[in-house]
Order: sequence, then structure tokens, then C-alpha cells
Amino acid sequence: MSAVNLTAELVRLQTETAKFQHDFTDNVNSFFLCSMALIIFFMQCGFAFLEAGAVRSKNTTNILIKNLLDSLIVIIGYWAVGWAFAYGESANETVGLFVGHSQFFLAGYTDYSKFFFQYVFAATAATIVSGAVAERCEFACYVAYCLIISTIVYPFLAHWGWNEHGWMAQGITSGVINTKYDDFAGSGVIHLCGGAISLLAAWIMGPRIGRFPEDDEDESDEILGHSVPFAALGGFILMFGFLAFNGGSVGSLSNEGDGQIVALAMINTILSGAFAAITYLIVYFYQYGKWTLLLTLNACLSGMVASCAGCNKMETWGSVWVGVGAGLIYLALSRLVRKFKIDDPLDAFAVHAGGGFWGLMSASIIAKGGIVYALFDLITGADNSGDFIKASFAQLGWQMICALAIIVWSLVIMYPVFAVLKKIGKLRVPEEIEINGLDVFKHGELAYPLRAYGHGWHEFENA
Amino acid sequence: MSAVNLTAELVRLQTETAKFQHDFTDNVNSFFLCSMALIIFFMQCGFAFLEAGAVRSKNTTNILIKNLLDSLIVIIGYWAVGWAFAYGESANETVGLFVGHSQFFLAGYTDYSKFFFQYVFAATAATIVSGAVAERCEFACYVAYCLIISTIVYPFLAHWGWNEHGWMAQGITSGVINTKYDDFAGSGVIHLCGGAISLLAAWIMGPRIGRFPEDDEDESDEILGHSVPFAALGGFILMFGFLAFNGGSVGSLSNEGDGQIVALAMINTILSGAFAAITYLIVYFYQYGKWTLLLTLNACLSGMVASCAGCNKMETWGSVWVGVGAGLIYLALSRLVRKFKIDDPLDAFAVHAGGGFWGLMSASIIAKGGIVYALFDLITGADNSGDFIKASFAQLGWQMICALAIIVWSLVIMYPVFAVLKKIGKLRVPEEIEINGLDVFKHGELAYPLRAYGHGWHEFENA
Amino acid sequence: MSAVNLTAELVRLQTETAKFQHDFTDNVNSFFLCSMALIIFFMQCGFAFLEAGAVRSKNTTNILIKNLLDSLIVIIGYWAVGWAFAYGESANETVGLFVGHSQFFLAGYTDYSKFFFQYVFAATAATIVSGAVAERCEFACYVAYCLIISTIVYPFLAHWGWNEHGWMAQGITSGVINTKYDDFAGSGVIHLCGGAISLLAAWIMGPRIGRFPEDDEDESDEILGHSVPFAALGGFILMFGFLAFNGGSVGSLSNEGDGQIVALAMINTILSGAFAAITYLIVYFYQYGKWTLLLTLNACLSGMVASCAGCNKMETWGSVWVGVGAGLIYLALSRLVRKFKIDDPLDAFAVHAGGGFWGLMSASIIAKGGIVYALFDLITGADNSGDFIKASFAQLGWQMICALAIIVWSLVIMYPVFAVLKKIGKLRVPEEIEINGLDVFKHGELAYPLRAYGHGWHEFENA
Repeated sequence: MSAVNLTAELVRLQTETAKFQHDFTDNVNSFFLCSMALIIFFMQCGFAFLEAGAVRSKNTTNILIKNLLDSLIVIIGYWAVGWAFAYGESANETVGLFVGHSQFFLAGYTDYSKFFFQYVFAATAATIVSGAVAERCEFACYVAYCLIISTIVYPFLAHWGWNEHGWMAQGITSGVINTKYDDFAGSGVIHLCGGAISLLAAWIMGPRIGRFPEDDEDESDEILGHSVPFAALGGFILMFGFLAFNGGSVGSLSNEGDGQIVALAMINTILSGAFAAITYLIVYFYQYGKWTLLLTLNACLSGMVASCAGCNKMETWGSVWVGVGAGLIYLALSRLVRKFKIDDPLDAFAVHAGGGFWGLMSASIIAKGGIVYALFDLITGADNSGDFIKASFAQLGWQMICALAIIVWSLVIMYPVFAVLKKIGKLRVPEEIEINGLDVFKHGELAYPLRAYGHGWHEFENA
Repeated sequence: MSAVNLTAELVRLQTETAKFQHDFTDNVNSFFLCSMALIIFFMQCGFAFLEAGAVRSKNTTNILIKNLLDSLIVIIGYWAVGWAFAYGESANETVGLFVGHSQFFLAGYTDYSKFFFQYVFAATAATIVSGAVAERCEFACYVAYCLIISTIVYPFLAHWGWNEHGWMAQGITSGVINTKYDDFAGSGVIHLCGGAISLLAAWIMGPRIGRFPEDDEDESDEILGHSVPFAALGGFILMFGFLAFNGGSVGSLSNEGDGQIVALAMINTILSGAFAAITYLIVYFYQYGKWTLLLTLNACLSGMVASCAGCNKMETWGSVWVGVGAGLIYLALSRLVRKFKIDDPLDAFAVHAGGGFWGLMSASIIAKGGIVYALFDLITGADNSGDFIKASFAQLGWQMICALAIIVWSLVIMYPVFAVLKKIGKLRVPEEIEINGLDVFKHGELAYPLRAYGHGWHEFENA
Repeated sequence: MSAVNLTAELVRLQTETAKFQHDFTDNVNSFFLCSMALIIFFMQCGFAFLEAGAVRSKNTTNILIKNLLDSLIVIIGYWAVGWAFAYGESANETVGLFVGHSQFFLAGYTDYSKFFFQYVFAATAATIVSGAVAERCEFACYVAYCLIISTIVYPFLAHWGWNEHGWMAQGITSGVINTKYDDFAGSGVIHLCGGAISLLAAWIMGPRIGRFPEDDEDESDEILGHSVPFAALGGFILMFGFLAFNGGSVGSLSNEGDGQIVALAMINTILSGAFAAITYLIVYFYQYGKWTLLLTLNACLSGMVASCAGCNKMETWGSVWVGVGAGLIYLALSRLVRKFKIDDPLDAFAVHAGGGFWGLMSASIIAKGGIVYALFDLITGADNSGDFIKASFAQLGWQMICALAIIVWSLVIMYPVFAVLKKIGKLRVPEEIEINGLDVFKHGELAYPLRAYGHGWHEFENA
């Protein structure tokens, strides 16, 4: 070929290759986000059954419809305004530190896979609370808090922590210090937020009738869930979903090594969950002589929650400590809550706030670049170890500030909501309904109508 | 390098790049189809539990085995002949408008991922009907209709609508009119087909004993399903699956923007389901003062069914109307069916035929390029708005013709099948079996054998 | 452009393209492995419910926690040492034939997606056994065997068969003979291993109290599982998972045609399962006049197990015979086990060892390049058909040797384990606990606490 032809051919090849790479990367990234989002979406089913198994049969339909509506209310709320607050642009830089305000109803926005992925995260944030208010929450209250969490509370937090313009994401830069909110998959903005609201809701709502009898002795046995298998089913689905939750948070497959980070995140998630569960199981067995399934499952979930923040850069040995810590924190918090006679039927606070907070801390302590690494450098006398120490402690401090901000924001918005609902009598169902169960009165649907049972063929039965 | 070397290098690079692009596109497309097909396959579990929850305990094993066998019978039937009818070639062009007839048993066909994806669609079409005939259908009848739907009824429809040679896909071209059957993910060829057959089957089979008592008052409560949680589990799985169903229908990731269409389809699916569910819930609450879970779930599914046809090109605001419409149509049809004393225990007709028909219509009315857009152009006085109006109404007309063809074909093939089965006494189980339940007599397996229950450790129980 | 510029541009393009191809292939391969591994992980939930449905209500919590802990114990054991044995390097070539011994705790290893994928396989191997020892196994015994299978038994087998240095993978080369262990997705190293250990465990442990009454007549009805729907749920999830199990075993999407092999593997898996199920169903109906759900499900799974070994190179017609064979072998083995009064509540031996063994054989007989093809060549008088016959029979012989090695190894390691546990009284729970159920005594958690049931609103109930 002549030089002219060669040039033309080369340019053509360059153009074609660039187009292929661009299109294909886009398509594969979308596929990745959508497939992970699908599995995260299925976590709604997991929460539904974890909670359905943990309530009495008379409130089963109620808890199921709550969880079904979660995903449906949140898609409407997040599509209408939530996304705009979280990821919309703001012309004003100062406003932009706190909230976005464009792309309402997705107007003009076409990166659908990112939206879809963010939607399933929002749905998760909203659904955590339903466990804490189970068996006594008014339907109107549920719809209200669900809408407000998905349109205001969570979107603002996502903006602060995950939008590049947000104040937590921007952090502080000064000398060797360069802090940035570090929360890969939402230990803070999702789980700590949901967990904090859970505690608030459970506290304002008060315990279920009969939950804390005068005679304190047999408290832990007082109200039992009606189906261990359903709770276990929910737990399995949540574990399945958590792997996608944390793996999917890589968010793209465009950069070198992205795929391996997906896998690393998944490994750290299951490792952390495993160590949390085993730790809890052993402590519990040591104390009570029983191998508890339900609480071990909760411990496992709290380990997975804790792994959210740093699973992308944690070395696998680090997950041992993330897990052990999460298991113990869950143990401590769940007992503390009971001590204060706050009735959180699903331990939503202990699992999500405890795991979430420890996740934020451990990401600055144990994950690569964290305090443990700085101390190791200091001890081995590496260069600049003093700066490293300073920077890593500053980072931990910033994480704490952000954790505090998340808690305060969640409570400041939600307290008035619950207070108003209480005022107007829409917070909690009347005593008669609570005692007889919400299913019949509120939904007209018994979970297990007696008349639908009957085994027939008596000869067979008696054989 | 010399020009000669350069040319050689360039040609080598071109060849290599072309090969990489070709192979990798193939592989990723296969991966995409297979992973979406996997989740769609799991919808069989969703249908099984939606239906198992909705029947009485004495027929639970029966409905579960029906749904298990669906996927197994359909893979055999669709592999043997169904695929050949749907996507095989025909040497004769006129025959080719109606049916293919090559690649029986996949002989000579190697695009396995396309086959696998189409198989899970065929399984869905067949499985819809099992809800309508629940609690009274003979096992032989079930096997027969399942085989015929998956080998004849659905494959022909897929050929008509989705094979480029099919008469519905070819449509009519004349002047500004250029109609083509427009059914992205099967509102028509799957759901309208399955829904129409459901009504036929439920009608021929007659209502379950005790379904419509003389005294009309308490009809709606007469026969209740035995487990709301199972029905909800099925519903959650179906929602999960529907997202893959509609997203996966993009069918490839090779073209610019394919990935975003996957995500858009998923968003429209959940939005449409959400608006259908909320609409139904509000209307129902207004009428009866109860927040129904089971019917809201059905409404949500009908919204998702309706989104199938146009979710790839619907703007998100359009899904609001697809959903609201689907919710209301489901409401109307489910009551109409009951008014006519046809016993469709799962509302398979109302959900799938109602949602499916509205899906086909809305794809021509609300989706991009539809009548709403033509009217907008007309009102704003855009160029060629007259032609646009003409073309879009012609398209709607063609959709109606195709919808009619789907219904007629489904009924024309299946009516004789059910009639013959009735004649030879293989349509419906004898009265004694129906009253005592199919599980023991037909399957020898009680869903919940009493002897397997017993809680032990009486001290604990009584504590 | 000048030649110099052209050269520079071309080199730049070459470099960029190579980098893109390398990175993107890596990322997509990771994504593929992780997403398939996710679904395989979910099989733990499938096993849990298949088994939970098949035990009595008093042992339901016990079987669920066993299955939950499977995935958690295995991640710890496999991460710590299992992986190192299976895929670690060995400096010594002879040692390397049998075991690796580097990368303990994943030290220095970064191909995380491969590890994650292998982990879910290890979890599957360990989980098979829990069905065989259900309702009577001590918790300590369960933890012990689970750890040993995931850290020693299975990793060694994986090394032998799937590590390129392993002795089974290396095989024998001599003249026209070139054997290599041929087990695509683990019919042998996973299922035959798990199945053989299941039989051993069930035999050593002895039958459940009341399983084989003096009066032999009604044996098959003696102990029934408490929930057919749970068993079916587990079965559906396992079918879903098996498709990913076999499809995912392709392991990469880098080579031409990989994607289609993924799809082919899935098609063969479902076809084989379908033919196994239908075969069993017909034989059983012919004998007993009932359409059994639970056993058909087991037959389906045994067909899927059998498809593991050769599903990547089986033509679809071959899966008919893989399935029919698996269905019949399952039938025969499950009866044989009962004849010998060995109590394997889940038929773990018949499903996994029977299906697994037949899978290994059929991969050398029916799959492409197998004996059937050699015989066809011989009959049609193709060139070198004699060599082909020789080579294919040698391959079958090698498969048999490997199958034997898998069985022997599994039993040789596990027999002492169970024997020691028996000696120290940690094999089986005391009679009193077995009779009253493990849930209360061992776990303190009834699956369905009576006090959690109660339907409220008596007026409604009686209406």
C-alpha cells in the first residue's frame, strides 16, 4: 500500500476500534450493572422472608405487603425526585455540596443502568426499617416513612458521600492530609442510615404488647417468630444478594483490574460474614449451650454489612477482623437495645447500624492504606511513616465525622415525621388490632386460612 | 518500518482486531443471553409458588409437580419440534410466512444461546395456563396441553411475530404506512396467548366444586389459597424474573446503546408494575377498606406483562400510563370473569391476557413513535404530522389484527384439544378426587403429612 | 503521514488495542465467573430447603443451620488451606502430581475470581453429605466432616483432576492412547466424592429410629418429610443453580466459541435432567400408579449431576441417553440402599454417586469423541477407526480408574474421621434427643413455635 492508503486504512482502523471499544465497554458496563442490580432487587424478597419468619402468623401478610410495596413505592419516589437530589447537577457550587436538583423524573437523563443500580440501593435503604416496626406499625406510617427515606433521607446522603460534588466525598485536603469519605458499598449511607432510623422508629413506637413482661426472666422467649424456615430462606437470599451488592458496587468493568475487584469484594463479603457468624455462634454456645440459627444468621448479615465499606481494598486477612468485630458489636448492641426495653424485632439497629458503623471504621483501620498499615510502617521504620500515621488517623477522623453526620441527618429528618404521625394517631395500630393481628383487620387476608387446610383421604392419613 | 512492513503489520492488526471483536462479541452476547435466560428459567419457581400458595393444601403437591414438569416437558417438546416451527427455515416463501420446518432436534443448529433463551420463553408461555386449571385438572390433560402449547401453539406465534419471515413481523407496507408487529418481549405471543388459553381452559373445565355457591354473597371468600407467604414468594420471584425477561429481550449487546436499552426496559418494567399495583391498591382500598396483598401482586404482574411489548422504547413517563391502564384492566377483567362464573383461581386470564392486550396497544399508543407522539406533532403543527398520524394509527390497527390473530389461533388449536380430553374423560378429575384433594390420590404425597409434625420436648413447649 | 509517523501511530494503536483486549477480557472473564458463582452459591439455599422439606418438623432448624454453616465453614477452610492444596504450586514434580502447597490464605494470589468460583464448588461438595446424615447427626460431627471435606478430601481431588499437574489430569500417553481425566463440571470430583461419603456416613451412623420397622411392609411410608413445598423450592433452586454450575464451568469467555459452549452446557443440563425425570416418573407410575413429585425431582437432579462431566461436548441427542441412564441408575441405587437398610433420607448417594458415576462413564461413551463415535466410524469403515476404538476404550478405562480413585480416596480419608467420632460419642445424638427432635435441645429454636400461631379475629375465622 502507498503511504496515503496506509494512512487512510490506519485512520479507519483507529476509528473503528475506538468505536467498538467505546460501544462495547458501554454495553458490558450496563450489562454488569443490570445483572448485579437484578440480584440486589431480589434482596427485597430476602428481607420480606427474614421478617415474615420473625413475626407471628397473625401479622405475616402485613409484613409481606410492606416489603412488596417497598420496591414499588421507592421506584416511584426515587424516579420522581430521589435521583435528582442524589445525582442531579447543581449550578450553585455551595448548594451542590449538599444536594442536586436536576433530572427530576429522569428528564434528559439516559444513563439508565446507573439509575437502575442506584434505585435498588435506595430500595434497600428504605426496607431495613420495616423489621424494626414490625407487628404494630400503621400502614399509613409505613408508606410515609418509606417515601421520605427514598426521596429525601437517603438521596441526600448518597449525594454527600457518593456524588463527587458532595461535601463528604470532597473531604479535607491540607498538607499530607487528604481525607475523603470512604464507603465503597454503603456501610454508612445505606446501613447506618437505615439502622439509625430503625432504632428511632422502634423507640418512638414502643414495644409490642407483651414484649417486656413485668417478670423479666423469660423475656427473650416472650415473642417468637412463626417460621424459622422462612427466616432462613430470607437469610440465604440476603447473603446471595449481598455478594452482588458489594461486587456490583465496583460499578464498571472499564478499568484494568475491575473484574478482580468485583471478585475480591465478594470474597471479603462472605469471609466477613463467616467470621462474624462463627464468632457469634461460639460466644452464644459458650453462654447458653445452644447453637442458634436465627441469631447466627443476623450476625452473618452484620458481618456482610460491615464489609460493605472496605471490601474492595481489604486484604482477605483483614476480613477476619471485620467479621469478628461485626459479630461482637452485633452481640453487644442487640443486648443493649433489649436492656433499654426497645423492641426491635429483627435487630435491624444492631445488624445495620452496628455493622455499618464498624464497616466505616474498619475501612480506615484495617483496609489497605489504613491505620494498621501506617502502624506497621512506623514499627518497621519505613520512610514517611509519620506522615502516613497522620494521614490515616485524619481519615479515620473524617469517617467518624461522616458517620455522625449520617446519624444526625437521619434522625433530624425522621424524628418530626414519626412525631407528627404519632400526634395524628397514624403511627401505631390500636391495641385491639395489635392483639388480634393486622392481617385480618388491615388486609382481609390471613396468611394461613384454616379452611384452606384439610388433608382429605382419611384412610391414607390414618394408615 | 518500511511501507511493506507497515502494510503487513497493519493487515495483521486489522485481522487480529476483527477476530477479537467478532469472537468477543459472540461470547459476550451468549453470556448475556444465558444469564438472563437463567433468571427467566427461575420464573418457573415463581409460578409454582404463586400457584401453590393460591390452592388448598390438599392440592399443593399437584400444582408443584405441574410446574416442575412444565420446564421439563417444554425442553423436550421445544427441542424436538417447537424450535423448528418457530425459527427453522422454510424453502417456500409462502409457507415461511406461517411456519418453519427445519432444525428439528436442533440438527445442524449451533447458535445455542439463542435456542436456550427461546426455550425459557416457551416454558413461560406453557406455564401460565396451570393457574387457570388448578385443583381440578387431570394429569393427562395437563401433559397434553403443555406439550401442544410448547410444540405448536407458541412456536407458530413466535414464527409469525418474531421470525423475520413471519407474516405479522413482515406487516404491510404501502405509502407512508409501514406496519410491523411490535412486541418486544412477548405481551402478545406469550402472555395474550397464555391468557386466552387460560380462559378457554377454565371455561371448559368448569368451576371448582363450591366455588360459586347458590348464595352469591360470600363468593369471594369461598375458596382461599392455603399460604399467603408462598404466593408472595412466587410473586417476588416473578418480579425478579420479569426484569430479566424484558431486559434480556434486547437479545444482544453488539449494537451501540444496547446495554442502556436493557436498563431502560428494566426500569419501565418495574415502573409499570409499580403504577399498576398502586392503582389497584388504592381502588380496592377505596371500595373495601382493606390493603390486599394477593391482588396487588397480581396487579403488579399485569403491569409488568403490559410493559413487555414496548418497554424498550417507552419513555419512563409512558410507563405510568401503561401501569395505571394495566391495573384497571386487570381489575375489570378479573371481576368480569367472576361475574360469568368462570373459575380462574390465579386470575391467569385477567393478568396475562388483560396485561398482554394492553401492552400491545400501549406500545402503539404511548411508546416513542406512537399515537400520542403523532398527536403531539399534529397539535404543535410539525411537518408531516398528517403522515405520522396515518402511520401510527395504521400501526395500532395492525397490532389489533395481530392481537386478534393470536387469540383466534390459540383458541382454534386448543379448543379441540380440551374438547377431546373432555370427551374421553381426561379433562377433569372425578368429583371424589376433587373433594378429597389430588395430592393423595394422584401423587401419594401429602404436602404436609401430619405425622411429620410434632414438636417434642413438651416441657419446652409448655414453658 | 510520513512512514515514521505511521509507524509510531501503528505501534500506539497496537499497544492500545492489546491493552484493551487484555484488560477487557480479564474483566469480562471475572464478571462471568463471579455471576455464575453467585448463582451456584445460591444452591446452598436449594440444598437447605430440599433437605428441610424432607425432614420432620422437629429437625428443621437443625438441617437449616447445617446448610447455612456449610458455606461459612467452607469459605474459611478453603481460603485457609483448601485452595493451596488444590491449586497451589509445588516445586517438586512428584509431589505436584498429588497436591499443591502454596498460597495458603491466598497469600500472594490475586486471581480472585477463579478462587471465588472454586470456593462455591467446594461448598457444593461439602453440602451434599448433610442430607445423608439428617435427623441424627451430632453438630460436632457435622462441623468436623464439613471442614475435612473442604480442606482435604475435595481439594486433593480437584488437584488430581483439574490442576494441570494432577495425576488424573495428566493421564497416560502411549502410542495412539492419550487419556486424560474428563470431567467438565465435576460429576466425579464433586458429586461422586460427595455421594460416596454420603453412603459411608449413612452406613456408619445407622438408620433413624423407626426407619426400618420389623414389619417390612410399609417401610417406604415410615418417615416422611414435613413439607413438600419446601422440598420443591429447594429442587427448583438447585435446577436453577445447576445450569450456572455447568455453564459456568467453561471458566472463561476468551476463546472463540466459549459463549456457545456455555449455552450448550446449559441445554444439555436441562435436557438430561428432563429425560431422567420423565423416565423415572413413567417407571414409577407404571409400578405404583402415582405421579411422585419428590422422587421425580431427585431423578431430575441425578440427570443434571450426570450431565456435569460431558455437557460441554455432548450433542443434544446424547443428553437423552445421559438422562435416561441417570434416571434408571438413580432408581436402582435408591432401592438398593433401602434393601441394605441404609438410611439415606435424601438419597444423596443415589443422586450424586449414581449420577456422578454415570456422568463420568457417559462422557467417554456418548459425548463427542467417545466410544459411540468410534463404533460408528468402525461400522462405516472410516480411516483409523481401529485406533479410534483403542483410544476411546482406553479413555473409558482411565475414567473408571479415576472414578475408583475418587471413591477410594473419599472413603479412606473419611472412614477414620467417622470412626473416631463414633468412638468419642460425637457421631450421633443420643436416642432421647433424636426422638424428641434436635431443634429444641440443640438449638433452642423450634421451626414453628406453636405460640407464634393464632389467627385472631374469631368472627372472621368462623365466617
